[in-house]
Amino acid sequence: MTEYLEIKPLSKEAFAPFGDVIETDPAKMRLINNGTTERYHALAEPVVIGEPVRLIFNIFRSQPRLFPYEIGMMERHPYASQSFTPLSGRLFLVAVSDDEEGRPGKPQVFLLGPHQGVNYFPNVWHHPLMALGAVSDFLVVDRDDPAANYEEYFFPSPYLIAEPKP
Amino acid sequence: MTEYLEIKPLSKEAFAPFGDVIETDPAKMRLINNGTTERYHALAEPVVIGEPVRLIFNIFRSQPRLFPYEIGMMERHPYASQSFTPLSGRLFLVAVSDDEEGRPGKPQVFLLGPHQGVNYFPNVWHHPLMALGAVSDFLVVDRDDPAANYEEYFFPSPYLIAEPKP
Repeated sequence: MTEYLEIKPLSKEAFAPFGDVIETDPAKMRLINNGTTERYHALAEPVVIGEPVRLIFNIFRSQPRLFPYEIGMMERHPYASQSFTPLSGRLFLVAVSDDEEGRPGKPQVFLLGPHQGVNYFPNVWHHPLMALGAVSDFLVVDRDDPAANYEEYFFPSPYLIAEPKP
Repeated sequence: MTEYLEIKPLSKEAFAPFGDVIETDPAKMRLINNGTTERYHALAEPVVIGEPVRLIFNIFRSQPRLFPYEIGMMERHPYASQSFTPLSGRLFLVAVSDDEEGRPGKPQVFLLGPHQGVNYFPNVWHHPLMALGAVSDFLVVDRDDPAANYEEYFFPSPYLIAEPKP
């Protein structure tokens, strides 16, 4: 029988093994520009390993998922971090897994607020972006040459996610 | 007499000497994730020169400017690019200058749509972020250690900007 996954709100602590959370963390605030701007400093760090040592900015425009949604595969990028920051002010879902001898374990699913982003560490198993409700744009910072920086794994039996209640 | 600056809409061509525009350029689109996502690929590239070779993600939360607004100074970051991507879906202004023997020339002012960002090349003179209408958040990718990566110049006579008409 197919297993439904719990959806948890995103917190920095819960996400720490997988990446950084990009949000206005009061502990990281400093005033700049004569006090007109709050700079939330160094919330995350883009990382690239190996050739080409080139990070790029991209925009991902994603169709919303339909529910119940089936998580059948996970992917990872061995040579770079990958960040997702919402540009459309909409909630979205991420799913991540611990690595278990080269394969993703059971996914953990997090609901992100419209003002939270994430930066996956290199080589962290994750599901492709899951937009909710409407077409949504995300700023993505990752390494160029995505095809050479990509592994995927298909679960023998997919997991399911019910529609999240905001 | 103080000079008013013209406000132009942002275009890739007009901005080319100063940096890249981060927007959903149809020429850079490829479908990914089984066709559920449009990836607008490699719209810009974060660049860092010198130590610390470390790029960081930040959020800038900016007060809106009041008009007529006085442009009295410009700044530049010799050792890294700096990107601004709007997270609040609001218009904003950028001002940039050619370098004239180590000083900024007369600024050019661009009005950005709510879905356009920019990535200044290293060492490009620009005015600090000018949010419009309400407090606005921006994702900023730049180099760590901002104080050591900073030059500023104060104009003997400031320029003025009238309130932009969207």
